[in-house]
Formats: sequence, structure tokens, C-alpha cells
Amino acid sequence: MQNDQTFAPVVLVTNTAPMTAAAYGGRAKCAQRLIRLDMPVPTTVALSFKAVHDLAQGHALDLGLVLPHFGAAPLLSVRPSSGSPDWGGPGAILNIGMNDRKFSELCESHGETAAATLYLRFINAYATHVARLDPDAFDDPETPTAGDVMKALTTYCDEADEPFPQEVDVQLAHVLRSMARAWEGTSARLLRQAKGAPADAGLGLVVQAMAIGVGRGECGSGVIQFASSDTGLPEIHGRYLRQSQGREALDRQVGSLYLTKDPRGPSFEETCPEAFKQLLDYSVLARQRLREEMQIEFTLESGKLAILDAVRIVRSSSAAVHIAVDLARDGIIPREDALMRVDPKALSELLHRQVAPNAPRSVLAKGIAASPGAATGKIVFTASDAQASAARGEAAVLVRRETGPEDIRGMHSVVAVLTERGGVTSHAAVIGRGLGLPCVVGASDMRIDGQKKTVIGRNQQILREGDVITVDGTHGEVLVGHVETVEAGLNTAVTTLLGWADELRDIGIRANADTPRDAQTAKNFMADGIGLCRSEHMFFEADRLTVMREMIFAENEADRAASLERLLPMQRADFTELFQIMEGRPVCIRLLDPPLHEFLPADRSGLRDLAEALSLPLSRVTERVEQLSEYNPMLGLRGVRLGITVPEIYEMQARAIFEAAIDSGVDASPEIMIPLVSACREVELVKARIDAAAAAVRVERGQSFSYSLGVMVETPRAALRAGEIAAYSQFLSFGTNDLTQMTYGLSRDDAGRFMSSYVQQGVYEEDPFHRLDKEGVGELLTLGAERGRAARPEVVLSICGEHGGDPEAIAFIRQCGFTYVSCSPFRVPVARLAAAQCAIADKIKN
Amino acid sequence: MQNDQTFAPVVLVTNTAPMTAAAYGGRAKCAQRLIRLDMPVPTTVALSFKAVHDLAQGHALDLGLVLPHFGAAPLLSVRPSSGSPDWGGPGAILNIGMNDRKFSELCESHGETAAATLYLRFINAYATHVARLDPDAFDDPETPTAGDVMKALTTYCDEADEPFPQEVDVQLAHVLRSMARAWEGTSARLLRQAKGAPADAGLGLVVQAMAIGVGRGECGSGVIQFASSDTGLPEIHGRYLRQSQGREALDRQVGSLYLTKDPRGPSFEETCPEAFKQLLDYSVLARQRLREEMQIEFTLESGKLAILDAVRIVRSSSAAVHIAVDLARDGIIPREDALMRVDPKALSELLHRQVAPNAPRSVLAKGIAASPGAATGKIVFTASDAQASAARGEAAVLVRRETGPEDIRGMHSVVAVLTERGGVTSHAAVIGRGLGLPCVVGASDMRIDGQKKTVIGRNQQILREGDVITVDGTHGEVLVGHVETVEAGLNTAVTTLLGWADELRDIGIRANADTPRDAQTAKNFMADGIGLCRSEHMFFEADRLTVMREMIFAENEADRAASLERLLPMQRADFTELFQIMEGRPVCIRLLDPPLHEFLPADRSGLRDLAEALSLPLSRVTERVEQLSEYNPMLGLRGVRLGITVPEIYEMQARAIFEAAIDSGVDASPEIMIPLVSACREVELVKARIDAAAAAVRVERGQSFSYSLGVMVETPRAALRAGEIAAYSQFLSFGTNDLTQMTYGLSRDDAGRFMSSYVQQGVYEEDPFHRLDKEGVGELLTLGAERGRAARPEVVLSICGEHGGDPEAIAFIRQCGFTYVSCSPFRVPVARLAAAQCAIADKIKN
Repeated sequence: MQNDQTFAPVVLVTNTAPMTAAAYGGRAKCAQRLIRLDMPVPTTVALSFKAVHDLAQGHALDLGLVLPHFGAAPLLSVRPSSGSPDWGGPGAILNIGMNDRKFSELCESHGETAAATLYLRFINAYATHVARLDPDAFDDPETPTAGDVMKALTTYCDEADEPFPQEVDVQLAHVLRSMARAWEGTSARLLRQAKGAPADAGLGLVVQAMAIGVGRGECGSGVIQFASSDTGLPEIHGRYLRQSQGREALDRQVGSLYLTKDPRGPSFEETCPEAFKQLLDYSVLARQRLREEMQIEFTLESGKLAILDAVRIVRSSSAAVHIAVDLARDGIIPREDALMRVDPKALSELLHRQVAPNAPRSVLAKGIAASPGAATGKIVFTASDAQASAARGEAAVLVRRETGPEDIRGMHSVVAVLTERGGVTSHAAVIGRGLGLPCVVGASDMRIDGQKKTVIGRNQQILREGDVITVDGTHGEVLVGHVETVEAGLNTAVTTLLGWADELRDIGIRANADTPRDAQTAKNFMADGIGLCRSEHMFFEADRLTVMREMIFAENEADRAASLERLLPMQRADFTELFQIMEGRPVCIRLLDPPLHEFLPADRSGLRDLAEALSLPLSRVTERVEQLSEYNPMLGLRGVRLGITVPEIYEMQARAIFEAAIDSGVDASPEIMIPLVSACREVELVKARIDAAAAAVRVERGQSFSYSLGVMVETPRAALRAGEIAAYSQFLSFGTNDLTQMTYGLSRDDAGRFMSSYVQQGVYEEDPFHRLDKEGVGELLTLGAERGRAARPEVVLSICGEHGGDPEAIAFIRQCGFTYVSCSPFRVPVARLAAAQCAIADKIKN
Repeated sequence: MQNDQTFAPVVLVTNTAPMTAAAYGGRAKCAQRLIRLDMPVPTTVALSFKAVHDLAQGHALDLGLVLPHFGAAPLLSVRPSSGSPDWGGPGAILNIGMNDRKFSELCESHGETAAATLYLRFINAYATHVARLDPDAFDDPETPTAGDVMKALTTYCDEADEPFPQEVDVQLAHVLRSMARAWEGTSARLLRQAKGAPADAGLGLVVQAMAIGVGRGECGSGVIQFASSDTGLPEIHGRYLRQSQGREALDRQVGSLYLTKDPRGPSFEETCPEAFKQLLDYSVLARQRLREEMQIEFTLESGKLAILDAVRIVRSSSAAVHIAVDLARDGIIPREDALMRVDPKALSELLHRQVAPNAPRSVLAKGIAASPGAATGKIVFTASDAQASAARGEAAVLVRRETGPEDIRGMHSVVAVLTERGGVTSHAAVIGRGLGLPCVVGASDMRIDGQKKTVIGRNQQILREGDVITVDGTHGEVLVGHVETVEAGLNTAVTTLLGWADELRDIGIRANADTPRDAQTAKNFMADGIGLCRSEHMFFEADRLTVMREMIFAENEADRAASLERLLPMQRADFTELFQIMEGRPVCIRLLDPPLHEFLPADRSGLRDLAEALSLPLSRVTERVEQLSEYNPMLGLRGVRLGITVPEIYEMQARAIFEAAIDSGVDASPEIMIPLVSACREVELVKARIDAAAAAVRVERGQSFSYSLGVMVETPRAALRAGEIAAYSQFLSFGTNDLTQMTYGLSRDDAGRFMSSYVQQGVYEEDPFHRLDKEGVGELLTLGAERGRAARPEVVLSICGEHGGDPEAIAFIRQCGFTYVSCSPFRVPVARLAAAQCAIADKIKN
């Protein structure tokens, strides 16, 4: 815009003056908007970014362009007008034009106190911010007199070696130049860049005739808004302080009136009913025409209302949703606008209880914010203690060096999880997010002593089992003791907004759900289906685990078949329930993925228990566990490699899925996914066996069902060879967690130890497990999608894994033409919104 | 060829008959060659592949095209003539044309015994192979009579329900059809495919007038060759048996004459001096004109020599080299031909002692042939026992579940290594090949009990510490006891051949060498330089290991600096020696790569020793070791990640390299390589520090030196981002071991457990750690090379790792325009030859 049109350096703000926010800043543009709404805005002149920049560079401004608009002997304010109020800027300077003569006049018209207040305030501001004198040299008396003014003028003269300037043009010229220079100072620039301002952010200045809030009659100033910043609901908030100007009403804690009628004291509504009524009308007008909930800054001068400025009201995530939805519902903005106004990341906060913003925090340790929300509980160190605690009805926090599959049951029993190690996609983090548990991982500044059952915090503070801590998973902090929290803010406004999102988005959002409970959560969050059901999680339930272990210890095929025979009905029941909960929505089940040793105990006592359960000598159990152990389990005998070497397991799972599809009584159409594929022939072999199992079940049950079979693309090779793999796969789901691990050669469980240092040094721009690496992993996604589609145009493409819920990742894979994403159930709402925003952004572009 | 020209179904073999081996088979073509050399070859008629195929399909052959060439009442033989003698085929059938009348005639001319021998032999062959009668029904008397013939004819008539055919055209027609059909049977096809024949391999047939080796006067048959099959040196070998025909001389173990004068009995040379002289002349002629060492098949009929056939002599690897070199030296073939005639893989056998081909083998276990050669020694279970054994001067074999860096010193002390686990690129395998030690890994059918110090073999045989075994690393077998071996065959012929290879190859061959000993081996094998010096291997020497551990346990930067200060002179001395040995040839040094925990002890006693050495409480040592342990060390804090998080280590190494470059007194020009890069910024950061170290050393020493800096491309991401990485790298060396691991998501240490099953089932065509995966890993190599070169055209591209020595891999990366390969020192000769063959093959093509 700024380049399309040359804007005047100085412009009188009117209905029709050619102005943009990009040339004059937000405050100037807003003043014009208020004028267009016929609000009583004092005369306002705007200086463009360019004019201010020139000023800072030492070029003089022709005040002949400014002053004539304000008549003879005006009183003026100058305020900053930048791209965003968040970027800071020089403070406002009020009462420019005060001098000895004006002082005398105002003593007459407004009284000595008011006149002295105005003059003194200007002298102080000028001395401090323009002449850069020591602020301590100037007093700020409660009820100033002419004597105080004389003293201030003398002090000024002493300190500045010149009398206080009496001419308004001199005063204004200095004020403008000093504010322009302040903006361009290095520290101010760094400060606003830290808040997101671009390096070349400009400053405009707004010169406005003062509405004098002090003097005779009803004088004062204030701010008012008509919706709650916390909830977004229609409520009147603000402050009004008599005999004040500028930000005094906000800065002074005492003395302001209640805004509305209140039994506790006098109110603005009663004292100034007309002004109150006028503001109410203005607020309706502003909401309608500015299409926002605005906070209005106003002044009363002898009962006469002046509107100085209006800004978007500050708002919580919850309020943001409410305001956007209400504006759309009232027909003020289209639904697309409402959707675009809500930050998907803010939405995720609403799904979880949070630490109260102002609660005192005694930090035990800092780590990675792995799963949002806050919860308080007693420290437990083992999964079984967690279960015992749950049985007693006590809230517990599971504290571990790291979690593994054997901890899952324990994680189901606690309110939060804390680990010393691990990164954003470590086991604890993934499961924590899946269960919606607050979770901090990689808290490497604390030390756990599992033997002594103690945690030593960053300040050497020692906590013991049973001590209470609060895990703040939103901010990655662990707090000592019970800390106040606020409820999750998910409400009907969110539901409405997401309903609109679903109508607009053009990419599917499914959930990763392993258990009936997860599936229920997914359905509650309106997921389009299940994109990843990790079937092995079902084997960790106590009754199944034992049978699973028997299967692992089977000496021969007959014994193994017998164990699998016992697992079959359990798996079938699991899947039946899952299909019934999902009521015909697609369910994609990944066949067994982890290495078998994950199902075996790691410690001595677990080994003893197992030996007892299996009636085997301890030595035999130990030997087998050792045999199965691996140097790099991530890269070992797991996934389809198990499916090829012990084919009976996948056959049992396929059979359980098919029988469940029939038993469920719903149109289940299961999708079966093969994990960790690296060669096309793996798919070919497994597909043949699964198709055979389907044929067998069809014959046995005399009933038909449909299913589809696809591949989880997790190895770089599978992505590169997606063309030939697609020949055997109806869908390709990219597992970006493992794909990231292998593309970087980086284990997510071990990355925690150096990831923060890497990100700090800028070696990685961001943790690639957190934010999809578009350059490396992204290229493999693109290549894989292209090749898969070239070989089989109707192939269904998706991603599952932690990136599935990330708005940036959603935008990226939508560009690549993927069909859906799958993410933790608790991220489904975020993903639904983000997907809608992508579609809308695309529509706007084209 | 077959398609370019239509060949007659039947052709009389003459000097000028239009014939190719592709249309008529090797034997037919060879007959023509012998005729062209004016050798006395009996009348020969060849049937084309097509003619034989038509016969098998039931089409009759016009015998009017065959029989007239042989005159009235001929005696004929029919022999197979396929693409290669190795592919098998129907046996020859001799004496076709024998009937009652011919029998009477021959009784007159050759005597009854000879006549009966010929007739009986034909009846037996015809009955068995053509009429498919039970062979047991027919006798084979030592000195047959007319009565035996009568009996055979009667038996034939009884069994076949028809009299034995008396007409030569009927006999020949049936023989030809039966041989044609035998070739096209399923089992014959599978058998020859197993030997490398294509699915559509054709059979030709050769009909030849019989030279009758039985009868009156000097009659007999034999084979003769004039070079040794074992050594390739000029020596006369063969057999001659009087009164024999066909393969009798070879099949019968007794009764043959010595070929040359021999004190032990009569010889062919003395008995038939003329024929002997003639054969000598023919051999010279054949060698000269057929440009090969040939074995000649001949018959004497009443003192008259007939040459039936000639084939390339069977030869050992060593003989193959010798024969090829001699042919080239004698000007018979060009050097290029000599190079193309030697299989690079055969060459690798010559570098190592082997189990004697006929030695009896009692197999204890089978595993993966990880490093070729054979050696015998006593079983030891630990590295320290290995060293003790070496101190006593006893040959030992190190037997471990798996080896790790702590075993390296032990491996230096043994003659062979055997591990229960691991694949072709596991630690044991890589180090074994590097040291040229015979090595079998992944011997999963044996079980090691380290506590009891026993090995239980595949047949439950229990061996104890100190028992003797022989490791056959060429064939992947472990044999019980001492087994006879034969010396390595590396000789001057090989040296000559490789000298020629070096003149022709257009790609560099460097060696992976970590120690001065390795470097010396590399130089002996004429490597062009060192392509990969794994600098960490120097830290495993006893004196360094302790300092290294001190460094790891350093509490603060000062302590760490002190330890590094002590490591510096040791590293400097190592590098100085390396540079001096290599005398200015390029040396590429990889900075520290393994995770630090690899330098720490894993077992309890090692931990105690360490606590003692460091004067630290055991608990502190245990805690630190646990802290450093990783879930997936391959994907953990190692390589450049150490270089970024503990930069002092790389700085020390760089300094050691630069100071050594000066101290060595040779023009060292070291190349410094950064391992495990996944992001461009890693290179940028490390490069800045190394350049600074170089500048510092230049100033301190007041001496200039040059060096180059590059990256080891081991992660898929580094390959994909090679363009930006090349901006900071003078060379890119692709580490195909790790790249394969990450592309497949497959740990080489854990792959052993299922790799053989995977290869057997055809899931992977070959172990990708053994044979470069051109499709997946290969695409990353191609992409990386293209992108690297696009960003920096002069970038030096290479591969290091196990694939470097593989001829197929060499051909592949040569196509991609790489500059050199680096491989184990012991594979350098193979690689030199393979590289030359690539260049020659290219020249032929263009």
C-alpha cells in the first residue's frame, strides 16, 4: 500500500482524508474510523511513518502544516501510532502549548489547581523526555499551586540552562523530534523486534487537541469495554477517574468510580448518565462497523464527552473464540473471518486445565513442555505405586527417568507425568498427549534417585515420595506444592467455531487412538475417524501381557499357536468395541510394531515374577530376555520384520480385526496398516497372508466385509520407493516421528540431552520432532506422495504422528495433496481449525 | 546375434560354415575352431538351438540333412552343446549306428571284445536314456562277448516290448528327440538356473563320427592340458586310458598311463610319442589362436589321433590370474582382456589363507562369512584372555556374543574372531576385515555361555575355553579342531595384473586405516591414500583410554581442558606417524564419532577399576555411566553432535592434526572430515572452529600448511541437503554403512537376527550392508552427488565404508561421477581390479 500511493507527511484526519494504517499507524487510522462513525473525536493531525523517520534523521517538519488546524493557543497531545500497540513506543506527551499565559487563562476558566496540574505535568514530561533532565529534580504534588509551577520553571531553567520554552511551535517541534528519535534508538528497536516487530517497523505520530479532563464541572477520563477480556461474554468493564487525563485512570489504583450502578459506592453510570448512554451507543456502533470488540478511551470536559482512541480489547484464548463466534453469529463478520481470528495454538490451551496466570511459582525443575495442561498430585516413582495411589483415590504424578511400555498402565492412573529424560516425542510425551495428561519431559536439571525415592531439584531442594508437586505441561515447569489452577475453557463457542471449521476444511482430521477410552475422546472431539490405532497397546493390559509373554517364550510353533489362540478373542473384543464406538467412521489399525523385548520385564524382580508365571527357571527367562535385547531397538527386529519372521502374529491380528468387523454390527470397513516397511516385497508377503486370512474368515462366517490395506511410511527408503509400494497399498500413511528420526539419524528418546542446546545455537531452527522439517523430511513426504500417486492415482495419503496436529504441518501436507492427518485426540480441535484456516487462506489467495 | 541372422537348423561344421556359439552352442563352435586350426576333428554336424527346441516340441527333424554327411553305415556320437558347460545337459550317447550287422563287421575288423563293448554300451545307453528302461536290467561285463550282446538284445525286447532298433536313422531320431526333451524338463531347467543359466537357455546338439578308441593297434582316449589348474603354471596334466572311449579315462580311477615319462610305469609320451608330439603342437596352436589354456579331448584309433573337443581348463583363482597374465605377457591377448578375465571376488580369496578344499569339516556352527580367510586357534572368551594368550605365543580365537570397541585390543591379539550375533557390518565384521582376520558373525545356531566359558554348537556339542577351533571366514563356518589350510596365493602375477589395473582405472582407491599398522597394509596394497581414518580408534589404547575417561568425567571445563591437553600429544604422535607412513598420499581423518559411553566400561568389574583409577566413589562412576547410556546409541549424541556440544574435543583433534602435519616433515595436506552431519549449520559451526585452530597453529609454529575440510554424508538428510552442505565442504564422503542403516531404519548390529531369513525369502534381494542398495541408498547417493556438485562444481565425492570394496558399488558410483572409493586395506586389490574393469567395460561400450 505504502508503495502504491504517496501519502502526505502530515494530514488532517477527516472522513475522507487518504490514509492507511500502513502509512500512518494504527492509532491514526483508528481516529479516522471513529470520525467516520461521527464520534466526538478532538481535532487530530497524523504524521506519516516517513515524516517521523525524516524527523529522526534531522530533517525539520513544517509546522505550518500542523498548527493551523488547532486554532490559536491550542493545548495538544502527541501519541505514537505504530503498526501494533504491542510493539511499544514513546509515551504520550500531553498539554503541549501550556505556557505562562495559558496558565493564567486556565486559572480563570478551570481554576488554579487544574491549571497548575496541566502546566506542571507538561513541564515534568518535557523536562524528562524532551530535555532529558533528571526526573527526581521535579516534584509531583497532590494539589499543585501556582507556587509549585514557579518552582518547576526555575528548576527547569537551572537544569537546562535556558528558560522553559513558551512558544507552542518550539514545544511541539521538540516533542515530535524527541519521540521520533526515541523510536529509532537501538534498545527500542531490539525490544520491539523481540515482540515480533519487523526490523524496519515505522512510527507515525498523532497530534490531537487536548480534551482537558481536569477543571470545573464533570471532568475526568477513562476507558470502557463491553465484553469481558476473560470470557468474551457481554459485560461492561473499565475505569473512570474524575479530574484525570491520559492513562491516570488506569495507572492509579484508587479513587476511580464504579462504571455501573454498584451498592459499594458512586458509579459513572449514575454520575454521568448521558455520557454513559452515549458510550453504550458508541460501543454498539463500533462493534458493528469496526467489526471488533473495542476498548474506548474517553475524556469528559465539563460534562462533554470526547473520544480519544479505541483499541481491540485484550482477550484470553477463551474470550477470543467467544468474541469471534458472537461477531459472526450477529452477522457482523463472515464465519471465515471468525475462523481466521482464532489462533489454533491458543485453542489447545482451552482443552486443558491451566496454572492460574498469577499464581506464585516455586520452580523445582524446568523441562520440555511435552503435553499441555496443569495438574497437582503426590510424587510416585513406579507404575505400580501409581496404581496403588489411584486405588486410594489420591491424585499422583508419575516421576521417572524415562517411561516405557511397561509404564502405560501406571500412566493411566496418574494426573501428570514428569521425566528426567526424553524429548518432545519420547514415549512419555506421546502417551501423555494421547491421554491428555500434563507432561514435562527432559527435565535434566533435576535428578531422580529411584532407590532412595527422592527427586533433587534445580536448587538442590530434595522432594520425597508422597510430596506434592504441580506439573505445568503448558510451560514445561514443575512447581513445588499445590498451585492454583483454572478450568479448561472448552465451551459451546468453541464447538460452534469448530462446526464451522468442519464445513470449510477440505482435509480430513483423524485421531490416534489405541484404546476404547481414546476412541471415545476422539469421537467427542469430532475426529473423522481413527488414523492410527497402535494395536500393541492393547497387549499391555495385565491379562494380555502374560499371554503375550508366553507367546514370546514359546518353544515351538504349537505352543506359540496356543498363546495366539488365547490372544485372539481379547484382540477381537478390543477391536469390536473400537468399531462400535466409532460407528462406521474409518478405523486404521497398525499391526504389531514394537520389538518383542518391550513386552518383557527389564528389572530383576520383574524377571523373577515372569519366571514364576511361566514356570520356567530364572536363568532361562534371563537368557531369553538377553537374546532379545537390541543395541538399537528403534532400528531392530520390529514392525513388518516381525510380521515376516513370525507371521502368525499378524495373521492372528488380521483375523481378530475381520471377526470384529463382523461382530461389531456396524459397517466397520477396517483399514490395516503395515509398519516399518523398507522394501516392497515386505508388503507383498504380508498382504498375501492378510488377504488369505480375510478369505478364511469370510468362508467361516459366511459373511462378507470390506477392508483396505496400506503401509506406514516411516523409513526414508519406503518414501523413496513409494511407487512400487503403492502397487500393493491402498493407502500410505507417513509416520513422521520415525521418518524424522531416520532422516536425521536422531533418536527421539536420546535427542533430549542436546536438543535445547542445538536449538539455542540455531543448529536446528526448531526441534524437528516438534515442527515438521520441511526441507529434509518434507522432501521425502513430497517425493513419496508424488511417486505413490503416480503409481496408483487413487492412493489415500496421510500423515500420522505428532506433527499431525501442527498447523504448519497441516498446511504443508495439504499443499502436497494429502487426504487427511491423524493426531492425538486432544489435538483434533486444533487440527480442525488449522485445516479450515488453510482452506480459507487458499480461497483468499485465489 | 541369433536374431540378426537365420541359421540353418542343421549344418556341417567346416572352416567356413556360418555358425555362432549363440545359435549352436559352445561345443559346436569349438569344433569349428579346431577344424580351422587343421586339427583332425571327425566329421561333425551341428543342430541349432532352434532345431533342438522344435524337436522337443514334437516337430520331426529331416535326417536327410544329417546322415548323408557320414557315409554308409556310420558310427556316431551325439553330445550336448549349450551356452556353458557349467549348465549341465544330457549325457553324450556314443556308438549310434551299432546293430547286428555292424557288430558282425566289427568282430572282424576290431575283434569280438571291442565290437561287443561298443554294441553293449550303445544298447545300455539307449535302453536307459532313450527307451527309459530300468538300467539294473542291463549288465556291464568287464570283457563282453557276443553272448552278452544277445542277452542284452533279448532283455531289451522283453522290457520294451519291441526289438532293439536296427536302423541308424531310427536310432538317431530317437536319441536326438530324447536329448532335446531331457533339456526342457522342469528339473533340468531349475538345476541349470541354479547354476546361472537364463530361463530360456537353449541346447544345441553335435553329431560326430565316432573315433573308436577300442580295437586292434594303439587304441584309447584321453584329455590333456598344458597348464596347471591349481597354479596356472605350464605343466602337463591329463589322463590317457587304452581301450576306452568317451569319459572313461576320466571316470575310471585305475589303469590309465602316465602322460609324461615317469619312473613309476609306462607313459603316454613313450608309448605314443608321435601322438604326444602332435598334441603338444596342437596345444601351442590352441593357446595362440583360441587365446586360452585349453584342455583337449582326443582319441587314438589304431594309432591315429582324433581331436573330439577342447574346453577352457578348470582353474583356481590363483591359476586364473597366472594364465591371464601369461597370455597377455606373451602378446596373445591385450592387457585389458587379461584384466577382464579375472573375477575381482576371486582375487580376494588370494589375499588370505584358506581351508584346504578337501579337508574334512566337522561344523560347530554356521554364520555369516564376514571376513575371508581361515585360521585355527584356542577358544578365548575375553579380550584380556586373548592378550594373555598372545603373550604366551598361542594362537587364539576370540569368541564373543558381540564385540565392541573395548575388544579391539583383544582382536589385535587373535588369529580369528567368532560372534554369536551381528551382521556383515557389525563391529566384529568391520574390524575383522580391517585387520584381515578371518571372521564369522551371527553364528546364531551356537550359544555362548560367558560365565561357564563354554560354546554349545549346532549339534549340542560343548566346547570349552582352550579347545581348538578353525574359523572359515570365507564360507562362514566354524570347524571343530585343527583343519588343514592352504597359503594365501598373492604372487607376482597378481602384482603385475594390479599394476596394469592401476594404469587403466579412472577412479581412486583409498583404504580405511585407523592405525599405523593399517596404514602400512594400505600402502603395501598400493592404496592411493587413506579415505577414512577413524580417529577414535586411537583412544582405545590402554594409556589413552584412561585419559579419555578422565575427560569424560571432568567436572568442569578446566578439568576437561587438562585431560585434552594430555591427549593432544598422543594424537599428534599418532597422526605424525600416519602422515609419515603415507608419504604425502592424502589422509582423510574423521573427527571423533562414537558416543562417549563407548569409552566407558560396561561391566561391574570394569566400573570398579575405573572408580579406582579416577579416585571416585563407585556410585558416582555408575551414575555417570548410566547418565550417558542411550536407548539407540546409533541415533544418539555422537559425531558432530559431540563436536557442537563439547567443542573442545574437535578443537584438540584439529590442533593435533595440524601440528602433526608440520612435524611429519612430509607434504601431508590432511583432510578433516565431520561425521554424522544432518544440518548445514553444524558444518558451518565446526568449520569456523577448525579454521580458527589452523590459524592459531600457523601463528604459533610460524609455518604454513594446507588442509581441506569436508563432511561424511551418513544421514538421509545430509544427502538431501548436500547442496547447502557443499557450500562449506571441499569434499563429501558418503558413509554407506550408516546411510544404509538410516535409509532402511535398520541397525547393522541387530539385523543379523533376521537378515538371512529376509534374504532367503527374497524380501531383500541381498543384505544391503553387503551389496549396495542401488534403489534406495543409491538414489540418495545420486541426489547428494548432483546437489553437491551443483552447489560446488569442484567438490570431491567419494564413498567410504564396507561397500567401497564391492565391484558393483564401484561401478555404480563411478557412473555417478565420484572421485574415489575407500575400503578396508585388504579389499584394496579387489577394488583396484574392479575399477579397472569398469573403465575397460566403458571403453568397450563406447
